[in-house]
Amino acid sequence: MQKLLIILLLTMNSAILSGQEKRTLLNWEIGYHKQVADAPAKWMPAAVPGAVQLDVMKAEHYKQPYWYGDHVLQFDWMEDYFFTYRTTFKKPALTAGQQLYFHSKGIDYHFKVILNGEELLEQEGMFTYVDLDLTGKLKENNELKIILRPVPKIEAAKVFVKGTETYRQNARESAKPAVSYGWDWHPRLVTRGIWDETYLALRNRSHLTDAAVTYQLNESLSAANIELNIAGQSLHNTSFKWLLKDDKGKIVVEKSGILADDQQTVSAQLDQPKLWWPNGYGEPVLYTSELELYDNDKKRIDQQSSKVDFRKIRLIMNEGAWDEPQTFPVTRSVSPASLEVNGRRIFAKGTNWVHPEIFVGLITAELYEKQIKLAKEAHMNIFRVWGGGITNKQSFFDLCDQYGMLVWQEFPLACNNYTDDQSYLNVLEQEARSIIKRVKNHACLAMWSGGNELFNSWSRMTDQSLALRLLNSICYQLDPHTPFIATSPQYGMGHGYYVFADLEKGTELYQWMAKDRKTAYTEFGVPGAANISVLKSFIPSGELFPPAPNTAWELHHGVGAWGDHRWLDLPVLEHYFGKIHSLEKLVEYSQLTQSEGLQFMYEEARRQKPYCSMALNWCYQEPWPSAANNSLLNWPSEVKPAYYAVAKACRPVLASVRAPKFSWKTGEAFTCDVFVLNDTYDALASSQVTVAIICDGKEQTILNWDFPGTKAFENAAGPTARVVLPAMKDQLFKVKVSVKGKPDYTSEYTFLHLKDAAE
Amino acid sequence: MQKLLIILLLTMNSAILSGQEKRTLLNWEIGYHKQVADAPAKWMPAAVPGAVQLDVMKAEHYKQPYWYGDHVLQFDWMEDYFFTYRTTFKKPALTAGQQLYFHSKGIDYHFKVILNGEELLEQEGMFTYVDLDLTGKLKENNELKIILRPVPKIEAAKVFVKGTETYRQNARESAKPAVSYGWDWHPRLVTRGIWDETYLALRNRSHLTDAAVTYQLNESLSAANIELNIAGQSLHNTSFKWLLKDDKGKIVVEKSGILADDQQTVSAQLDQPKLWWPNGYGEPVLYTSELELYDNDKKRIDQQSSKVDFRKIRLIMNEGAWDEPQTFPVTRSVSPASLEVNGRRIFAKGTNWVHPEIFVGLITAELYEKQIKLAKEAHMNIFRVWGGGITNKQSFFDLCDQYGMLVWQEFPLACNNYTDDQSYLNVLEQEARSIIKRVKNHACLAMWSGGNELFNSWSRMTDQSLALRLLNSICYQLDPHTPFIATSPQYGMGHGYYVFADLEKGTELYQWMAKDRKTAYTEFGVPGAANISVLKSFIPSGELFPPAPNTAWELHHGVGAWGDHRWLDLPVLEHYFGKIHSLEKLVEYSQLTQSEGLQFMYEEARRQKPYCSMALNWCYQEPWPSAANNSLLNWPSEVKPAYYAVAKACRPVLASVRAPKFSWKTGEAFTCDVFVLNDTYDALASSQVTVAIICDGKEQTILNWDFPGTKAFENAAGPTARVVLPAMKDQLFKVKVSVKGKPDYTSEYTFLHLKDAAE
Repeated sequence: MQKLLIILLLTMNSAILSGQEKRTLLNWEIGYHKQVADAPAKWMPAAVPGAVQLDVMKAEHYKQPYWYGDHVLQFDWMEDYFFTYRTTFKKPALTAGQQLYFHSKGIDYHFKVILNGEELLEQEGMFTYVDLDLTGKLKENNELKIILRPVPKIEAAKVFVKGTETYRQNARESAKPAVSYGWDWHPRLVTRGIWDETYLALRNRSHLTDAAVTYQLNESLSAANIELNIAGQSLHNTSFKWLLKDDKGKIVVEKSGILADDQQTVSAQLDQPKLWWPNGYGEPVLYTSELELYDNDKKRIDQQSSKVDFRKIRLIMNEGAWDEPQTFPVTRSVSPASLEVNGRRIFAKGTNWVHPEIFVGLITAELYEKQIKLAKEAHMNIFRVWGGGITNKQSFFDLCDQYGMLVWQEFPLACNNYTDDQSYLNVLEQEARSIIKRVKNHACLAMWSGGNELFNSWSRMTDQSLALRLLNSICYQLDPHTPFIATSPQYGMGHGYYVFADLEKGTELYQWMAKDRKTAYTEFGVPGAANISVLKSFIPSGELFPPAPNTAWELHHGVGAWGDHRWLDLPVLEHYFGKIHSLEKLVEYSQLTQSEGLQFMYEEARRQKPYCSMALNWCYQEPWPSAANNSLLNWPSEVKPAYYAVAKACRPVLASVRAPKFSWKTGEAFTCDVFVLNDTYDALASSQVTVAIICDGKEQTILNWDFPGTKAFENAAGPTARVVLPAMKDQLFKVKVSVKGKPDYTSEYTFLHLKDAAE
Repeated sequence: MQKLLIILLLTMNSAILSGQEKRTLLNWEIGYHKQVADAPAKWMPAAVPGAVQLDVMKAEHYKQPYWYGDHVLQFDWMEDYFFTYRTTFKKPALTAGQQLYFHSKGIDYHFKVILNGEELLEQEGMFTYVDLDLTGKLKENNELKIILRPVPKIEAAKVFVKGTETYRQNARESAKPAVSYGWDWHPRLVTRGIWDETYLALRNRSHLTDAAVTYQLNESLSAANIELNIAGQSLHNTSFKWLLKDDKGKIVVEKSGILADDQQTVSAQLDQPKLWWPNGYGEPVLYTSELELYDNDKKRIDQQSSKVDFRKIRLIMNEGAWDEPQTFPVTRSVSPASLEVNGRRIFAKGTNWVHPEIFVGLITAELYEKQIKLAKEAHMNIFRVWGGGITNKQSFFDLCDQYGMLVWQEFPLACNNYTDDQSYLNVLEQEARSIIKRVKNHACLAMWSGGNELFNSWSRMTDQSLALRLLNSICYQLDPHTPFIATSPQYGMGHGYYVFADLEKGTELYQWMAKDRKTAYTEFGVPGAANISVLKSFIPSGELFPPAPNTAWELHHGVGAWGDHRWLDLPVLEHYFGKIHSLEKLVEYSQLTQSEGLQFMYEEARRQKPYCSMALNWCYQEPWPSAANNSLLNWPSEVKPAYYAVAKACRPVLASVRAPKFSWKTGEAFTCDVFVLNDTYDALASSQVTVAIICDGKEQTILNWDFPGTKAFENAAGPTARVVLPAMKDQLFKVKVSVKGKPDYTSEYTFLHLKDAAE
């Protein structure tokens, strides 16, 4: 009974429910060995899906939890070992034509599958499903083994050099996500193992292998030509029944007939399809396709159901971008960076997604849903799924479809000069084809990208790099109507900065962001310390304050992660707030600057609309608990204060001010420009906008603006408010901007009050 | 006897000589009609290869020559007519297994091939060879017809609007070269017809269809793995003999055997291959591959020979380009624009190639050779074959191989937003595959490009345009190791300017070019009037002076071509030289500014090495006689003075000065910076460099520089020469810079002496 429940949970994660397939989970053991041919010295219980590190940790009584203190170092030795998974099972009773498959949705990373001593498959790559017909090779008692090779490394980077970027170079000849070799917010922990649903599948001779629904919308989006592409085995002469139901369950297409072949296309026409819209622009309407197959005795032999959307997404030139460059010798114009959905430009507000758990085998649909829901509630509409991490499990895409979150999906390349060698290109092609096939029919898929920051000096790939030409080519072949970019940033997009202030240059994000002009801010960050409860969960109490190198603060990237001071950035905090004497104050100031900084960045990107079309902070969450970094959520899903600031900055309509700096003195003329930002396709009526300053709890109106209203998807810029800053006791003061009759539009900003020597 | 001679000439143009194929030229007639099904009112003799316009011109006694005055307008009506070519032939005696093919290397543009009333082929596209087996369809007397459709147009651009760019939009849904719809140096003349070798081919049952030699060089270029890829029909059990001979005729590979199949690969290894080098960097060494097939009776049944090169070409990042950009938010680095041949960066000096004759059917190997030889003698090493024109005939590539001229080959897209429609993409794919297959094994092929200026505001294609993604994909699939760029300019490259001075802004090329910083100047121009003899060959004598609108000057783009004054640019000439009173003075001044301007541009691009890697002027030649434009050669192959200035500026080593402007006054301090430019891989020894000024024929030394020598491929920058400009009588003065003991390095520059009011 319990097993049945598990199966149900697992299959719920799939976009396509395979109704007639009988799945059996297996009990696995694991062992490690130095040479491929060695037998493991011992066998330990293995969790599947899971990770080799976790199985050894439990069996060999490692210090736990793995995220505490320096416990992660316990796993280092495993990189160079082989690991073998083993299971045994009895041959099931097979009726005529029934076939038994071994199916796995993810084995990480380079492995062989061996049944009863016979090698069935060798595969490099964790994103290509394994689907092996065992039928003809079965004995009464069977032993299935999966031997994992040591993790990929390259000669030049085999030595750990702490604090350098040589770590990540180990990924430059493989499709293994680069982040696991270490990043400025991720420890070196090269996870490995069976990481996604894995089972034996008993299938009828006649069964479906695919039932994808594709469509083409006409120019006015008022009608769709739909195709159901049936593929399977021994389908000749089976009859089918196909229903397409709208989001209310109403049948809008009904077709039936007899299949002539194992590949057959059924066409249909749908008038006035309800369109799928991303969050903030309409409902993410999903239809349901239900296909059933029957034999001559009208017995149902297979079925598949899947979600179907109708929407059109393009990546078009930003408004005003064709006006540049103007002078000869002229170079090209910037790359397009404006997403258009169903004929409407959207302002893409979102975040960079890194996987939510360092051991990707532990990620569940529930975890995905918790974080996706939080993003939706923060008025976001897009995730950039960063190429340093994994391509997520099926349930991630199902949930993004459902919540109206667009997905910018990168292939597993990041911050490296990936080789032109053919053996790597072959693996990449296999993995890319698998990923595209899996994701391309999802409503949420907004664009493909080759990977992260590949055309910058720290990576040194170019438009000529064969890996990127290959990915463009495969995407064009398999999914031509989804936009493809080679990498982010494209020409015209911006990445960074990742700090609140640059003390060396004497500038703050208030200045550099306001004077910039990018088509899309696809990465920007302001660091913030973790919540205190999170810090206490992994930093030994004796190390908690002050933060110091060679403690859990460093291993968890609070200090020494990028230069000496990031991500805690104590020099910046003490520059503004003076010497900090407690953990509580440290966290408060760090989280305040993160919140204020991110609020400014998102709102400023929006103020730069229509030229600017996107604002995605780096990053949304983290795969293990960092002491400080740019994320909005602490691991596992703890909300940091910055999350709420970002949620406010991403409201579809809001009043906004742009101040020129963070810290002010009494007697100085405080100024700020006032705006109403409107990302919706509703026009806004005229109203009264009020700016007030709040010092020591006293509110004083400093500007009334007769806001004339705006058109759909247009911001309005107002006058500049100005006030001589009064004397006050508090270290901080606030500015509030509100729109009469629209309390939801109110925004507040916090600034620092610097007492001058006279006070 | 005469026919045999013609056949020999034609086959000499092919890279692959098909020794055993018997070719028969046909006598063609042509007629025109309004509807496809109409019979032509009359039949006229047709020249093949040729053009429909020329046949009608001769038969219907049009005003000739076609380039004179306004004669070109006579052809306008033909655009919307069908044209049918017709020929008849008797069935030849066929021995057992012999096959008769109709073969054409180019029919322009959309056509059907009909044999004895039966349609054998419909094809859109002029670059895909037609090769049709007629054997089973032959009668005793046969009629072969080719029906050409009217030229492609789009609704939006069907109306001629003189002087606008709507002309060229007609090309945006086809693979027809856009230039024929009109450009600022090309009349609207949409040529059409059978434009390349066309014949009946009698082939043995067993015959070769391909015998391509491919190779891979090892990293150190010291050894090549070679593959001969034999393809043909009925080759089973035939024996082959394959020889590879070096450039001296010495046999370096000899293989023989029996073919098992119609597709077979023969491998060989060659140590220390002599490398092919572009002009200025070594010899363009070509080997010869000779393949012969024999039947069981040792009778030779087919043979093919082809040229084989060994070289490696990459497009790599320009020196210093990875250092930018530096500040956050950071966008991507520029695209690579530095050609590396056989492991060495080269400085690409060359020109933009437009086809040398408006009726492309008239282009011969002799014409190609004349112009290619002139480019080589001008020390050029690359042609950018501009996407507005045709992909050249086979002999062009053979000659570029032989002369060491690199070819940057664009696909037929230029200055348009080519449609994403599938029907266009299908034609483009067919044409691109044909072009790639034909060109990819040529030594000269340096890079592929999607087309001209597609990412600029006047075209409005982007990285997302399906046509460009398709081309990248096909090039990756068929020829992955040849660089591909989507268009020129890439990010970092520059196009323009195309004038000597901008009077509105008050600047000259001396200023804007010197302060620019591009990775590659892939188009820049300075206009110059045609030679007087050329002007007189097409402008009626009464219209010769002064140049005026609505005369042959305008139809031949001397005035009103781009704005009112380009390309003659009388306002600029009179700004410098005062009122011009004769044709002779006009041409002299125009050609002087073109020469001085281009000399400065090429030398300045070279001075910007190593960051800059290319200098290609717009344009090399012209397809009909223009009254004035940027070309170095007047049609048909008349050398303009600017050609000699460019040849001097492109010498592998030269002394060079950079002056800040063109016109100077007596008493003003004339200054210039001195340089020695070295594009060779030889180091230069130390020497004495002297700068002299020559006024009224008197030479005065103004600087002696102890030139310290330079390393291989490195320039040297010296001091700034300075002299108070003496009073003089002449309107012009010269500056001469020379290197002691190296008279070949001497350069001279001409400047304008402005008499001030006091003189």
